[in-house]
Amino acid sequence: MQIQLNPTGVLNLLSQLEVDLLQQSSHSERYRLFRNCALAVLNVGSHTDSSSEIYNKYQDFAIRLIARERGIKIELDNPPDTAFVDGEIITGIHEHIFSVIRDILFICQKHQEQIHVPREITHMVFDMLRNADALQVNTDPNLIVCWGGHSINETEYKYTKEVGYQLGLRGMNICTGCGPGAMKGPMKGATIGHAKQRITSNRYLGLTEPSIIAAEPPNPIVNELVILPDIEKRLEAFVRMSHGIIIFPGGAGTAEELLYLLGILLHPDNAKQCLPVILTGPKESESYFTEICAFVESILGKEALSKFEVIVDDPTLVATKLKQSMTDVRQYRKEQGDAYYFNWTLKIDNEFQMPFAPTHENMSGLNLHLEQPTQLLAANLRRAFSGIVAGNVKDEGIRAIKHSGPYTLSGDTSLMKDMDKLLQAFVEQGRMKLPGSKYIPCYKIKA
Amino acid sequence: MQIQLNPTGVLNLLSQLEVDLLQQSSHSERYRLFRNCALAVLNVGSHTDSSSEIYNKYQDFAIRLIARERGIKIELDNPPDTAFVDGEIITGIHEHIFSVIRDILFICQKHQEQIHVPREITHMVFDMLRNADALQVNTDPNLIVCWGGHSINETEYKYTKEVGYQLGLRGMNICTGCGPGAMKGPMKGATIGHAKQRITSNRYLGLTEPSIIAAEPPNPIVNELVILPDIEKRLEAFVRMSHGIIIFPGGAGTAEELLYLLGILLHPDNAKQCLPVILTGPKESESYFTEICAFVESILGKEALSKFEVIVDDPTLVATKLKQSMTDVRQYRKEQGDAYYFNWTLKIDNEFQMPFAPTHENMSGLNLHLEQPTQLLAANLRRAFSGIVAGNVKDEGIRAIKHSGPYTLSGDTSLMKDMDKLLQAFVEQGRMKLPGSKYIPCYKIKA
Amino acid sequence: MQIQLNPTGVLNLLSQLEVDLLQQSSHSERYRLFRNCALAVLNVGSHTDSSSEIYNKYQDFAIRLIARERGIKIELDNPPDTAFVDGEIITGIHEHIFSVIRDILFICQKHQEQIHVPREITHMVFDMLRNADALQVNTDPNLIVCWGGHSINETEYKYTKEVGYQLGLRGMNICTGCGPGAMKGPMKGATIGHAKQRITSNRYLGLTEPSIIAAEPPNPIVNELVILPDIEKRLEAFVRMSHGIIIFPGGAGTAEELLYLLGILLHPDNAKQCLPVILTGPKESESYFTEICAFVESILGKEALSKFEVIVDDPTLVATKLKQSMTDVRQYRKEQGDAYYFNWTLKIDNEFQMPFAPTHENMSGLNLHLEQPTQLLAANLRRAFSGIVAGNVKDEGIRAIKHSGPYTLSGDTSLMKDMDKLLQAFVEQGRMKLPGSKYIPCYKIKA
Amino acid sequence: MQIQLNPTGVLNLLSQLEVDLLQQSSHSERYRLFRNCALAVLNVGSHTDSSSEIYNKYQDFAIRLIARERGIKIELDNPPDTAFVDGEIITGIHEHIFSVIRDILFICQKHQEQIHVPREITHMVFDMLRNADALQVNTDPNLIVCWGGHSINETEYKYTKEVGYQLGLRGMNICTGCGPGAMKGPMKGATIGHAKQRITSNRYLGLTEPSIIAAEPPNPIVNELVILPDIEKRLEAFVRMSHGIIIFPGGAGTAEELLYLLGILLHPDNAKQCLPVILTGPKESESYFTEICAFVESILGKEALSKFEVIVDDPTLVATKLKQSMTDVRQYRKEQGDAYYFNWTLKIDNEFQMPFAPTHENMSGLNLHLEQPTQLLAANLRRAFSGIVAGNVKDEGIRAIKHSGPYTLSGDTSLMKDMDKLLQAFVEQGRMKLPGSKYIPCYKIKA
Repeated sequence: MQIQLNPTGVLNLLSQLEVDLLQQSSHSERYRLFRNCALAVLNVGSHTDSSSEIYNKYQDFAIRLIARERGIKIELDNPPDTAFVDGEIITGIHEHIFSVIRDILFICQKHQEQIHVPREITHMVFDMLRNADALQVNTDPNLIVCWGGHSINETEYKYTKEVGYQLGLRGMNICTGCGPGAMKGPMKGATIGHAKQRITSNRYLGLTEPSIIAAEPPNPIVNELVILPDIEKRLEAFVRMSHGIIIFPGGAGTAEELLYLLGILLHPDNAKQCLPVILTGPKESESYFTEICAFVESILGKEALSKFEVIVDDPTLVATKLKQSMTDVRQYRKEQGDAYYFNWTLKIDNEFQMPFAPTHENMSGLNLHLEQPTQLLAANLRRAFSGIVAGNVKDEGIRAIKHSGPYTLSGDTSLMKDMDKLLQAFVEQGRMKLPGSKYIPCYKIKA
Repeated sequence: MQIQLNPTGVLNLLSQLEVDLLQQSSHSERYRLFRNCALAVLNVGSHTDSSSEIYNKYQDFAIRLIARERGIKIELDNPPDTAFVDGEIITGIHEHIFSVIRDILFICQKHQEQIHVPREITHMVFDMLRNADALQVNTDPNLIVCWGGHSINETEYKYTKEVGYQLGLRGMNICTGCGPGAMKGPMKGATIGHAKQRITSNRYLGLTEPSIIAAEPPNPIVNELVILPDIEKRLEAFVRMSHGIIIFPGGAGTAEELLYLLGILLHPDNAKQCLPVILTGPKESESYFTEICAFVESILGKEALSKFEVIVDDPTLVATKLKQSMTDVRQYRKEQGDAYYFNWTLKIDNEFQMPFAPTHENMSGLNLHLEQPTQLLAANLRRAFSGIVAGNVKDEGIRAIKHSGPYTLSGDTSLMKDMDKLLQAFVEQGRMKLPGSKYIPCYKIKA
Repeated sequence: MQIQLNPTGVLNLLSQLEVDLLQQSSHSERYRLFRNCALAVLNVGSHTDSSSEIYNKYQDFAIRLIARERGIKIELDNPPDTAFVDGEIITGIHEHIFSVIRDILFICQKHQEQIHVPREITHMVFDMLRNADALQVNTDPNLIVCWGGHSINETEYKYTKEVGYQLGLRGMNICTGCGPGAMKGPMKGATIGHAKQRITSNRYLGLTEPSIIAAEPPNPIVNELVILPDIEKRLEAFVRMSHGIIIFPGGAGTAEELLYLLGILLHPDNAKQCLPVILTGPKESESYFTEICAFVESILGKEALSKFEVIVDDPTLVATKLKQSMTDVRQYRKEQGDAYYFNWTLKIDNEFQMPFAPTHENMSGLNLHLEQPTQLLAANLRRAFSGIVAGNVKDEGIRAIKHSGPYTLSGDTSLMKDMDKLLQAFVEQGRMKLPGSKYIPCYKIKA
Repeated sequence: MQIQLNPTGVLNLLSQLEVDLLQQSSHSERYRLFRNCALAVLNVGSHTDSSSEIYNKYQDFAIRLIARERGIKIELDNPPDTAFVDGEIITGIHEHIFSVIRDILFICQKHQEQIHVPREITHMVFDMLRNADALQVNTDPNLIVCWGGHSINETEYKYTKEVGYQLGLRGMNICTGCGPGAMKGPMKGATIGHAKQRITSNRYLGLTEPSIIAAEPPNPIVNELVILPDIEKRLEAFVRMSHGIIIFPGGAGTAEELLYLLGILLHPDNAKQCLPVILTGPKESESYFTEICAFVESILGKEALSKFEVIVDDPTLVATKLKQSMTDVRQYRKEQGDAYYFNWTLKIDNEFQMPFAPTHENMSGLNLHLEQPTQLLAANLRRAFSGIVAGNVKDEGIRAIKHSGPYTLSGDTSLMKDMDKLLQAFVEQGRMKLPGSKYIPCYKIKA
């Protein structure tokens, strides 16, 4: 089976020079990355979160860029059936494929080398979002970032849908990290809310990154997809685009996101920032939040608790509070002369911007002792959880673990104990793998 | 609690003369009908299909038309909470309220007296649909009418959603009779299919009538609502607007719809009509279709079976077949010089157009003997089932039954037996009432 | 040469009943009227204002309505070449043809008999404008009615263009009576102003009536055309839709319009009405306004002068003043609860609404004596000027004059003298015929 | 007088890094260029084509970029009054100002150094047009480039309007070099044609370059303005975007354009190119075309004559022929797999792409002898005429002439004689300066 697709979006209008560069890049070492992301996007209907399973199943899948005088086309060999209806690709998936080309191949022409200057990192994040047409100039604040596990239980999933529904009824848009669970529920709920309110400018924005996309492929409801080059730029994109953040129950990835967020909000320059954060879940998940709060207070102190609010079992309250906060967010941005579509005034330290590669060496070298500035501690903890996510669901991480055994983490006894306890709880609650597959921890804690 | 609402749609632009007439009509004997329909629309969130329960619960609800120099406003006293979000009415419900005013009050200014001439009845149906902006001139055939029970089981409901999803993926739009069950599932499914295909011109058309609207209120996803004056004009609107018809499992109402449809399609003038009809349901409902087919064949003969197709447990096949048929429908209409948006060439006999009032007298007077033309028999059977629906869910019918006891039906023994068998099956399968309330038959068959 | 045209606008969606009625009406005695209006619209490129010349030239022109299942088409025999580009009709003219059908034939189905009740006349005017989609609900006041001669000189024509340009630069839209001269200049000027301001919702609204359309055919720039049934309804449409009125130099028709306007504005109920009126022209036309003002003051008194302002040779000032007034108009309408798109609160007496047929008998019977209420005098003078316009440019009027000689007007000596003087001035200034044809007065004044 | 303006188009969405770079560039040596172009755009209403007059008149004009968190604003000191209406800038001029910033300052961030590789030059032209949103992907060929003098007589000007009108009636769009005369007439004419055909997607594209913009400022009707960095890139933009080219009478600039075009079309690789070229003008200008044809035939040979067609005094024929050619253009592009919006397959030699600086040295060094390949001769002649335009209307050129006297041109006697004759004819016909100012030749020919 062979299919040709015409370009969409920004790739619809390329010069011959750009087409050549694109073709070259697709033949380079980036090809494997590109092919795998494309496959992930096409394979959205499947029910596994194991990248290697997917890659094994579709070994004869291939994707090629074809140059013509007027631009490019792509050609697919043996793509997954589920992406097609009566032989035609589903429009949403078609768009996602070209988001992959845009963000994995095309953007390299502009941002080739590794960047180390903070303002250039921020510029790159901005540039990728702009290039994806994700920055809307004349819109009031209404974008709610929803974080949470991809492997939550049915009760929690229904709760995320209800929250999304209440947000949709109030005209708010949804941004998540793509994938199933807490990243899909709010979008599905909002779809119904938006339909009832006759809102047609609805946004379901997915921000992902290459190493996670296979495990958490974007549902075609996602009508804007951006693939940031690494986890740090993805996190920066989340916080600079958001006008409010909801954190649902989740595992290590969600913990990473929370630590990142707190690390930033605790920076003195951000003391006056107006960015509402709500942790919420159904009645049944109340203990989850108790544990999280205990962990945060114990490690980062009481001040950190003031940076967010916990609401249990009340989707309407969550949505109402966020809706009300939008006025403050608007007011704050206006006073600062800041944009609504991108939070320029938010201070993000270099520690949070520089990519962290979770090699065994880097992981064991992390400073997880309490006697360091709170913010730095948050940054290091964030990295620890990032590594755990990698070892858990990312292709490369899993292979490293298979080869060299679990990561070793070390630091203050009490901190390590708290962390161990939290992670154990995640494991017990089944938050770190899709149901059905057996969970094997990817780290050991050296007290 | 008192709320004022601005007009929408056609009511946004009225002359003072029209405003006066509207106000007068809202003070006339139509007021009760008008108020009850408005209440039904506002009460959509509730979970009862008993009109009288609703009317009892909201005795202090009132609705008033207020005249201003530039047009009308309406004022609501004590409307149901569920129609509001943070004190503002949900846009979809807001639109539905003004559909009620438009179709119950405003249209009377144009079509006051009872009409008896067939072409004037058709004109009125057309005029009401046009007035509701439901006739789209430059659109290819893509409107699928879905009929079926409002009280189907979970498996059947999921099946209707899946069919809707597959229709939505193929760009088809949905028209149903409003209400829950088989009338809601296809729309919800199509919403997701449309979203994945980035279709924003999606239509979820609800056709209802005053006596049924309280029992089957339009979900706010319905983005076009038309309230035809009686069941016959509603049925005519269905068949003249449809480009394809799906019949899911249902009770007496669905049987009425099927008999109406077959009665028309069996008319010699319609022999060449191109209107695909598919009966479908999940594996578990297969026996339902066996019974229906047996009934149809036994009463109306083999030819009637050729007018539809039964597909069990294959939503994709249903959608694919209908999608393919759209080309034929387009071709047929083109050859006839007929419109795509309204099937003018379909012959509908006076027998099927004239309103039938299911009084005890009219019901017992129905000729249900086999020795009459097939088409006439179909027309009379249709009336019988119509009466059973009335006695089952319609306010007035229920009161008549409470007062005078069940309707009496008589006719050929074999026919009556078949009919009794079918209705018993419906009762046993729980198709004639919402789960939870006890079902009491509203008719007795006199052999 | 034979051409078929598909319907546009409201005629695109007709029932078979309506199609039948349309066809019948096109075969009735209205056919001649209908055909002549259609011919006038098609003949827009020509340079004569003599209806009879046009009708003679195109004796083999015919127009027919063709019924199909899904609606109507029209067929033209031997239409004027100038309406076509490479064999295809110019879109603007295509639309105008269907405006003719809509307003001459289709509307009769709704408003058949002669109406005598004031509120029904206003309803009819409203209904025709609404039916033509000329009433825009969500737009702030910005429609400027421009009156003035169709036969002005080059300097005056350039001046009207410049005023239109300045209005267009300020986002205002133009409404005129169609035809050349002062009715075309403001639209052409505004087109350039709108283009420079990137305004794409520009309106060039033409209001005309059957007896004048041949002499003053709508330029295809007119993007909304409404043909009111008689001069009185046309005048009512002008004043109820306008948010400001400019009167350029003109002849008897312009005098009629001014008298109509003053008669209405002098009504005590309209004392607080907010409707800016400006008389303006180039330096060279200053004397014209001096004469008009003298006439108005002498006949209607000083108060009448307070109802308008004269601005000589300053297009920017005219546009700036009107632009500023729009805020007051908006405020006034808001306070009254009145619409922006239709001035319901303006009181128009029956005297100004009832059609006046300028037969010789009616003309000589006019009471033109000073000893009557000012308003009544204005109404009668208006009628006198209306008759003079008829005798001057209208087909029927010209034939009546040809047959029975000039109209006879009588009344107070001083009034008649003033009137005679004014009309003589018009004749001398060449305001009452297109240049080139010899002017013969159609009235005589009996002192 | 001080005015602040918000950004439009692509400049509405900048990163802080880009804002910094913009600010820096506006303080660099480009500032003078930038300021002068901005002034030219603002000064569009004036009636001089002397840059120095304009610059003298507005010595106190200043323009500044102001950085804010969310992007830039600009601030103007003492801008020309004519750009404003009631204190607000005309939208069309507002857009043009930001086109200046975009093309003079912003684009430098991407294309900083001088480019020498042909494909990079083409890429830059493409990139600037894309950045200006001037490349429309889904549009059939319909863009007609109109060249001709900015100083044509009234008869010729009316003729260009009539051609534009006929093009507009046929749905074609206009691209010119901005400025008055033959560059404005076709746009004004097309505006009326488009209005009559209800075309709202009308394009009036102006392509200019910094050194000519003051002398030929873009009329605000121009709704897309692109300022290419030099005359060669501007010419490349013209021919790659055009689907047909009209050449009206003109002076040295028009001759330059014609020679450029012929030089390219005579390239063997372009033998099959489908690009209709029509030279046209009123009856009175017939001799102009006779002279041009004689010159072309004498210098470039008979084949060159086959590359264009001359049509005298028939605007309808010009438009009809071009309209018909659009089908061929479309077909040709399709067969080549080429874009409709940019002619990639057109071969443009390096000789025609490399910028030519008309210094006295470069001008006297031009090889204008006949014994060289035709194409090279065309390239050199093109340069000669380019220099003459510079000495005639460009700021820098005029100053060089003032300082060092006229340019010296040398070459074959016969060629120089032909050239001298042609230029003398242009001077006599007043084609090389706006009427009113005395013309002094800027070159001398050394036989």
